[in-house]
Amino acid sequence: MHTFKELVTVFAERFAVRHFPHLPASLYEPGEYFLSWGGKRIRPVMCLMGNELFDEIHPDAYQVATAIELFHNFTLIHDDIMDEAPLRRGMETVHMKYGANTALLAGDVMMIQAYEYLNKIDGHHLHRILRLFNKTAKEVCEGQQLDIDFEKLPEVSLDAYIDMISLKTSVLLAASLEMGAILGGASEGNCRHIYEFGKNLGIAFQIQDDYLDAFGDPEKFGKETGGDIRQNKKTFLLLHVLEVANPHQKKILGQLLSQNSPDKVEKVIAVFKDCNVDEWAKELKEKYLQTALKHLDDIAVMSIRKKPLQELAEFLIQREY
Amino acid sequence: MHTFKELVTVFAERFAVRHFPHLPASLYEPGEYFLSWGGKRIRPVMCLMGNELFDEIHPDAYQVATAIELFHNFTLIHDDIMDEAPLRRGMETVHMKYGANTALLAGDVMMIQAYEYLNKIDGHHLHRILRLFNKTAKEVCEGQQLDIDFEKLPEVSLDAYIDMISLKTSVLLAASLEMGAILGGASEGNCRHIYEFGKNLGIAFQIQDDYLDAFGDPEKFGKETGGDIRQNKKTFLLLHVLEVANPHQKKILGQLLSQNSPDKVEKVIAVFKDCNVDEWAKELKEKYLQTALKHLDDIAVMSIRKKPLQELAEFLIQREY
Repeated sequence: MHTFKELVTVFAERFAVRHFPHLPASLYEPGEYFLSWGGKRIRPVMCLMGNELFDEIHPDAYQVATAIELFHNFTLIHDDIMDEAPLRRGMETVHMKYGANTALLAGDVMMIQAYEYLNKIDGHHLHRILRLFNKTAKEVCEGQQLDIDFEKLPEVSLDAYIDMISLKTSVLLAASLEMGAILGGASEGNCRHIYEFGKNLGIAFQIQDDYLDAFGDPEKFGKETGGDIRQNKKTFLLLHVLEVANPHQKKILGQLLSQNSPDKVEKVIAVFKDCNVDEWAKELKEKYLQTALKHLDDIAVMSIRKKPLQELAEFLIQREY
Repeated sequence: MHTFKELVTVFAERFAVRHFPHLPASLYEPGEYFLSWGGKRIRPVMCLMGNELFDEIHPDAYQVATAIELFHNFTLIHDDIMDEAPLRRGMETVHMKYGANTALLAGDVMMIQAYEYLNKIDGHHLHRILRLFNKTAKEVCEGQQLDIDFEKLPEVSLDAYIDMISLKTSVLLAASLEMGAILGGASEGNCRHIYEFGKNLGIAFQIQDDYLDAFGDPEKFGKETGGDIRQNKKTFLLLHVLEVANPHQKKILGQLLSQNSPDKVEKVIAVFKDCNVDEWAKELKEKYLQTALKHLDDIAVMSIRKKPLQELAEFLIQREY
């Protein structure tokens, strides 16, 4: 058994190789450039952890983990084109450095390469892994499209937002765990539980992310806070406050959102606090976390094997702030 | 055994169904819109023909054929974004109708759906089909990137152009035939021959396409001629004439290419004729066609089974002009 941190190191080492041919360099260098930035590689590590929950890590789990990480990076390259983002983690995005057309193709070929890694696994599990991978990949596209749609809508219900965020981010975490579990020979029931563990953990993580943008300590959070508020981004907090604010508070919010005054962030946070949005968000996060842990608890393997996944949940959620 | 035209009808009927869920409509309607235009569906029909060359059509061949057609349409949607094309076959392109971001995602999800159709085939051939599909898909991306690169270069050799055009268009024709052949239980040797038949036929077709743009009868060709010349598009004809023209002819060409005078097309064609480009192109096309037919000839099945593929070659190449 390995801890989450050990597997991060193990996977990072294995993943730090070329994934594409050298030529044509104009197509493949952009992909290698993007992958070279490193990253936490959380999704592939979750695949390895889902695998090790049931058995020793099978060599096929590394192939599937690699496919998952390539797929995730493909979505990031295409998302950056759509968002016209100049930077990601302080680095020039692929479309800024190489042009949008090359970034589009570099993303396409990265997705194809993900399927080539999937194709390296034993035939025994190939159909089932591909089915889950395809379903999840389509859901991630659906989530991204809904996100685009929602930004244009005047109102979005909290339930619709949770569905969107679940598709855009949580299902890939959930499927990463389940693909590992499938390779580990897990039963249908155990597969369902580990999927739900990942999905609910992902939603809890996203609530926390939205919370920290408003209420986090910038030093501990590692990035400037208030970005979502400045951009009027639809977050758990904003959608909830629009549902619970009284007419007076709604009027103030409406005015704040329609301008970009220097004290916008501060004043929106004041309304959030008046409406107890901070407490509400903590409780909602806790609800999803507990649902996740309940599913982990229900998986029929010895408790000791679940420890790394409990640590992962703590790592992702129990950050101090 | 079926003729090419019979299989076009059979496939078109089977393909004319919804390929995506209904929701979210903002993601899936654009794909259905694009697929609803119909088309010759040459690639999937080649898969069926490659299959029927060796055996009765296997149900899996329809799944693979559908995957091939979806993959081809995914490349068209993304190519149109890259080319900023407002129209395709007289219809508004996906990115013009729905925006570039949705077109990007509609393309992505169409590629994923192609893999879901591949995943419906029997496990026995899945690894081999996926390997050839992935290899080909990457080559198509390489061809598209090289095409983008070449348009920016002052000079491109004819050999480099043939490599590019082969990747961009011929390998998918070749692989479509071979995937059908694999499902039909063809030997390695027969698979190689049918692949080479398709690849060489594709190159011959492309030479003809370039030829017709300059020398075709617009009424029989079905579209206005001279478009490539007006756009200074690097074609077989232009690259060859730049290699064989004398200094005086090169100077005239240089002047013609640097402007867009009303008689540009006429005058460039005059230089083409002075340099015997028309005869050269016919001979080159014939060379590739004969290579293709030689490979078809070498396939170890009864001659009668090869008749539909001979008809296909005639349909694609022996058009009157």
